[in-house]
Amino acid sequence: MAAQTNEVDSIWMQRALQLAERGLYSTSPNPRVGCVIVDADQQVVGEGFHERAGEPHAEVNALRQAGNKAKGATAYVTLEPCSHFGRTPPCCQALIKAEVRRVVFAMQDPNSLVSGRGLQALKEAGIEVAGPVLEQQAYALNAGFIKRMTDNLPLVRTKSAMSLDARTAMASGESQWITGADARQDVQHWRARSCAIITGVDSVIQDDPKMTVRLADCQRQPIRIIVDSHGRTPAQAAIFDQPGQTIIATTEQAKLDVALIQRASDVWRLPEKDGRVDLHALQAQLAEQQCNEVLVEAGASLTGSYLMAGLVDEMVVYMAAKLLGSSARPLFQLPFERMSQAIDLTITQVEPVGSDWRIIATPNFK
Amino acid sequence: MAAQTNEVDSIWMQRALQLAERGLYSTSPNPRVGCVIVDADQQVVGEGFHERAGEPHAEVNALRQAGNKAKGATAYVTLEPCSHFGRTPPCCQALIKAEVRRVVFAMQDPNSLVSGRGLQALKEAGIEVAGPVLEQQAYALNAGFIKRMTDNLPLVRTKSAMSLDARTAMASGESQWITGADARQDVQHWRARSCAIITGVDSVIQDDPKMTVRLADCQRQPIRIIVDSHGRTPAQAAIFDQPGQTIIATTEQAKLDVALIQRASDVWRLPEKDGRVDLHALQAQLAEQQCNEVLVEAGASLTGSYLMAGLVDEMVVYMAAKLLGSSARPLFQLPFERMSQAIDLTITQVEPVGSDWRIIATPNFK
Repeated sequence: MAAQTNEVDSIWMQRALQLAERGLYSTSPNPRVGCVIVDADQQVVGEGFHERAGEPHAEVNALRQAGNKAKGATAYVTLEPCSHFGRTPPCCQALIKAEVRRVVFAMQDPNSLVSGRGLQALKEAGIEVAGPVLEQQAYALNAGFIKRMTDNLPLVRTKSAMSLDARTAMASGESQWITGADARQDVQHWRARSCAIITGVDSVIQDDPKMTVRLADCQRQPIRIIVDSHGRTPAQAAIFDQPGQTIIATTEQAKLDVALIQRASDVWRLPEKDGRVDLHALQAQLAEQQCNEVLVEAGASLTGSYLMAGLVDEMVVYMAAKLLGSSARPLFQLPFERMSQAIDLTITQVEPVGSDWRIIATPNFK
Repeated sequence: MAAQTNEVDSIWMQRALQLAERGLYSTSPNPRVGCVIVDADQQVVGEGFHERAGEPHAEVNALRQAGNKAKGATAYVTLEPCSHFGRTPPCCQALIKAEVRRVVFAMQDPNSLVSGRGLQALKEAGIEVAGPVLEQQAYALNAGFIKRMTDNLPLVRTKSAMSLDARTAMASGESQWITGADARQDVQHWRARSCAIITGVDSVIQDDPKMTVRLADCQRQPIRIIVDSHGRTPAQAAIFDQPGQTIIATTEQAKLDVALIQRASDVWRLPEKDGRVDLHALQAQLAEQQCNEVLVEAGASLTGSYLMAGLVDEMVVYMAAKLLGSSARPLFQLPFERMSQAIDLTITQVEPVGSDWRIIATPNFK
């Protein structure tokens, strides 16, 4: 469908993706989008990105900067420009009005109902349209948004910390930071890009975590979800004292103390499965709340349940240079008996983070 | 003690270390040594390495190639030249006789009884002596030889294969190759550089392994040791049919079938500890046999015992992109109850090997 693209296009698109990434911690529920406008002399005349919902889209910001220089220029956009009136007027109209000569896109709109419409509108206005360029990177940047648009489910990322022998604490529960300060700081970035952080009631009882983002360049707090099938969360838990919302996800039958209900920002009564919150129902509810990416920061049991339910898109595992021994607690509760039940992974990255190593993997569920 | 060295010295020493490495699979019980002879115009006039015990040392091979051109040249040697008559005449004498002007060494002789004597002999003959250069690399190349010279114990390397959740097989024993063909081929290199491969009787019973080196560039077979405290090795095990020696390491009290004794190349009767072969005694016996590096390729129990005994110098762990689950067999049997018992590691390398990852770590025993 697309006109030819070239190597120079990839370079400018790379820049547009960099700009898009500036919205990593702020655009949700919208996607992260960047735009670069380049004139016939290959000079940048405008740059922009989408910062947060309700504010101008990337194209509009870049066109504002370009002013008259947009005329006859090429616009690089990391996502197909929208053609509908949402909270802001359609970007297609802005590009047409600015009289750009050419539009290069990284990927089409993931919403199949409108995909291609923006490009079509541009073409009908006589603008040359080319792409996709760096499509894979553009997908990766908005994998959560895309999954929600296509499957009506958020992207689930799990975060774990383990020793080299894949243990998280001693059998007695004795634990301390397994990983170092650098790894713990690294976790902040995964939190910051998430719309919700999901933890289990046992983690709240044992560790009394805050589950907040503490990063200078992140203003908002993801909503915090405590999966608590039987209402065991202590009302005095520190998590309720943090900025932002803390929600209890529980079953329809669970009896919750009034004190707990009062402390919670909300209580989600969800269908149960085997006496516990049905995680598929929880995911649907999170999509309903327009969550693009959610981070599961829980113990072996809840994270294992997410894996058993086939709901995990990406795993981030910090591996510390330690051996905790064979009596210590396992990474994930996965009660497999046969090799055929084993979960195959694709390990996409292994990188040092301080004295620890960060492993990123995607499960290939059967 | 040493005259000044410079950057050019490092470059030539790097080359000498490359040559030394050609003896990786063949020099034991001798060290791997390389030598480069460079004339005043920075032209290489001779190169050599030590290939196997009883054959000429690296310096002699390089001097032979250099002939008269060695006169006035600089000799780069990865190990202090020997000053004693062993199976071959001392290399110092050869260097002096060839009238080299300068000798640059990477490290001194690790045997404290003779360390420095070779350098002294060269100096007394009026040769300029400089070093150490790239000492750390020179140590790493001969870490097993050095440990045997200094501690009278071989270097112990363990090899394991695990899933990302650090499991080696299902609880039932059901297993198959956890790691891929590339990782299994990679293991061959660790075997080839080892003087002995140590396995446990349970691995022999379960897997009936061959434990041989199958590499085109490796002629010898490391000796194979089966740690079998109670004489349970099946006499028909395939390991006895392989080229080279297979030795049973057992306790003084163990009753061994005549058939087993006949099949074994030797039976080592060793002191016991807690009813099992004392691994310290086994290590002493291996040093006695002039083993520099030994490779422990055993299950969770024996490898765990080596770790508990504080006898492991280096761990090679292949990690497969799989989750085998929390009921599956652990990487190492390490019955720790308290966090203070945890073993700290230094992870020195994490590299992809096919679809698996190879982790190299050194334990920091307290």
